Amino acid sequence: MKHKGILIVVSGFSGAGKGTLMKQLVHAYDNYALSVSMTTRDPRPGEEEGKEYFFVSKERFEEEISKDGLIEYARYCDHYYGTPREYVERQLEKGKDVILEIEIQGALKIRQKFPTALLLFVMPPNVAELKRRLEGRGTESQEVICQRLKRAAEEAEGIEQYDFIIINDKLEECVQEMHALIRAAHYTPLRNEELIENIRKELDALN
Amino acid sequence: MKHKGILIVVSGFSGAGKGTLMKQLVHAYDNYALSVSMTTRDPRPGEEEGKEYFFVSKERFEEEISKDGLIEYARYCDHYYGTPREYVERQLEKGKDVILEIEIQGALKIRQKFPTALLLFVMPPNVAELKRRLEGRGTESQEVICQRLKRAAEEAEGIEQYDFIIINDKLEECVQEMHALIRAAHYTPLRNEELIENIRKELDALN
Repeated sequence: MKHKGILIVVSGFSGAGKGTLMKQLVHAYDNYALSVSMTTRDPRPGEEEGKEYFFVSKERFEEEISKDGLIEYARYCDHYYGTPREYVERQLEKGKDVILEIEIQGALKIRQKFPTALLLFVMPPNVAELKRRLEGRGTESQEVICQRLKRAAEEAEGIEQYDFIIINDKLEECVQEMHALIRAAHYTPLRNEELIENIRKELDALN
Repeated sequence: MKHKGILIVVSGFSGAGKGTLMKQLVHAYDNYALSVSMTTRDPRPGEEEGKEYFFVSKERFEEEISKDGLIEYARYCDHYYGTPREYVERQLEKGKDVILEIEIQGALKIRQKFPTALLLFVMPPNVAELKRRLEGRGTESQEVICQRLKRAAEEAEGIEQYDFIIINDKLEECVQEMHALIRAAHYTPLRNEELIENIRKELDALN
């Protein structure tokens, strides 16, 4: 089967290891393209333009909104975050599966616009491990960790909206598993409408 | 993740190679159990009791119906066909994925009773190949082949009801692909309600 690419939305608890997982996936297989978001917030130390984000001014961002240049966007804490349309659509046309990381409201907006989008939810194997990972970073205060756990509880409410859950226990296995889930998603009827339509036409012609 | 087994329903055009595919799958991996249907029709030459079917009397079949011993049944051409419940449920409890071959009406009945059932539709790579395979058996008259192609056109109307389509081009690849699709299906939220509930409880306890 020849396929157009699938748009893949990755969500999950902070500390579940989404970022590493996505980077490893793109590194391990050549059918993926990573979408880079656009934001009006300032770069943090170590963040590079075009790698973590495209950093733009508020004016530039609002220009993108007005010309429908973003497939979704949201505003948090007085900053915009959005997904540039052109890159995503070009890669999908080329047959690449495009991955983007986004939280649930954005994920659901994406699904409305792209009914064939695949929604993946990444979880740690258990909550103790989640807490350990958040603490292990060593960079966050107890208060921030508490906020993240609270946020995780909120995000957990939306898990049923996702197509698949991914348990990030051992990274390498998890990358393979994620790849297998995405491959499987290519075989749903919704993502093969043309093929099915052709088979129907051919059958009708014989009958 | 520890999983209860999934009930897998395989449908598809006559001549698509469902039977061979299922046998190879069960042979290649040890997590599958093949459900054997019960019927009141007579065995055909070469068919063995308990292999192709359990061959029973009309009275015995109706007794099974009355004691809810079948998870679905249907009547075609004055004969009953049904799926014995006990074997299926025992294997699912043991964690086996149970496969059964059935046409669309039966498949949809199964999904009503088992919301986590996985519905797979097997297709040949194209209609020319389907016709070739039906003719290639050499056992069927032109009339029967025509009937099967007509039936295929009807069955094609229901493809969207299935979770995945499987293109049976090269048998060995197809067996692996089928296995991968079934594995993927274990990772949907619907099939992991207990895991998700536990994570929610643990998160709530921390917050």
